[in-house]
Amino acid sequence: MTQIIIEPMSAQAFAPFGDVFDASGTPDKIINMGKCGRYHDRANMDFGDGHAGISVFNAETRTLPYELTLVERHPLGSQAFIPMAFVPFLVIVAPDVGDRPGTPRAFVTEAGQGINFHRGTWHGVLTPLHEPGLFAVVDRIGDGNNLEEFFFDQPYVVVAQ
Amino acid sequence: MTQIIIEPMSAQAFAPFGDVFDASGTPDKIINMGKCGRYHDRANMDFGDGHAGISVFNAETRTLPYELTLVERHPLGSQAFIPMAFVPFLVIVAPDVGDRPGTPRAFVTEAGQGINFHRGTWHGVLTPLHEPGLFAVVDRIGDGNNLEEFFFDQPYVVVAQ
Repeated sequence: MTQIIIEPMSAQAFAPFGDVFDASGTPDKIINMGKCGRYHDRANMDFGDGHAGISVFNAETRTLPYELTLVERHPLGSQAFIPMAFVPFLVIVAPDVGDRPGTPRAFVTEAGQGINFHRGTWHGVLTPLHEPGLFAVVDRIGDGNNLEEFFFDQPYVVVAQ
Repeated sequence: MTQIIIEPMSAQAFAPFGDVFDASGTPDKIINMGKCGRYHDRANMDFGDGHAGISVFNAETRTLPYELTLVERHPLGSQAFIPMAFVPFLVIVAPDVGDRPGTPRAFVTEAGQGINFHRGTWHGVLTPLHEPGLFAVVDRIGDGNNLEEFFFDQPYVVVAQ
């Protein structure tokens, strides 16, 4: 199987696929009488003709190496994943190549990072690496078919660096 | 000082102020080939003439008893707090009584719970009880003054049950 080597998450490397948000660097604003830093408006969300909702996802943790057979995309809106535990998780994405996913890339977040897939971005299903696999998901609520799945003929294997 | 005794968080008790979301009970949908439960669309969000944004808040942890002097409200939109660590946090709210906050109530969440203040709800500032005090906040991005603060003449003291 073709190996995909996991890269450390970085805003720059992830930019073609979505946003990474965390509390690194200087806050945009200090609020609450000096007791809280606000890192303002860090995700490029798009809900089309729908609206934003918060759902909770409770996913099974995965182990490495991880066999990747399925990616999906949401043609009607963006989708943000906010880990509700202070642990890293695995994020798999793929460029679109002629309306099909190209060669996937895999990233591992740092604890305290959330990510937002831009509308239409091919991505793997939620793959926590640590218990609890609990995430708040901000995505589009609305009518229409917002899920497209793609199964690879040959699975990839995602491995640690 | 008047004491406010902390209550355990419950969806029912919190309903006049906002929503509680977590992965308790049966998921609304099983996704990702059986590996993930989706608890669907659990927050009543309202961004008025603005739009939804995700910001990261990094707040100092607090200890009990906690002296409460300030509450605030956001007249133009709802505000959701998603803890990025698997720990409880303190949530203070107050009913509106003639355009001023009435007697506050305090709740402590369970690990894995997030909350959403409905538009215009009086609430205390973000009060984590455990490190890291890291939250993703989904609130209104837009123009206009969306912050109203109220300082109590006599502070309250928030104490454990």
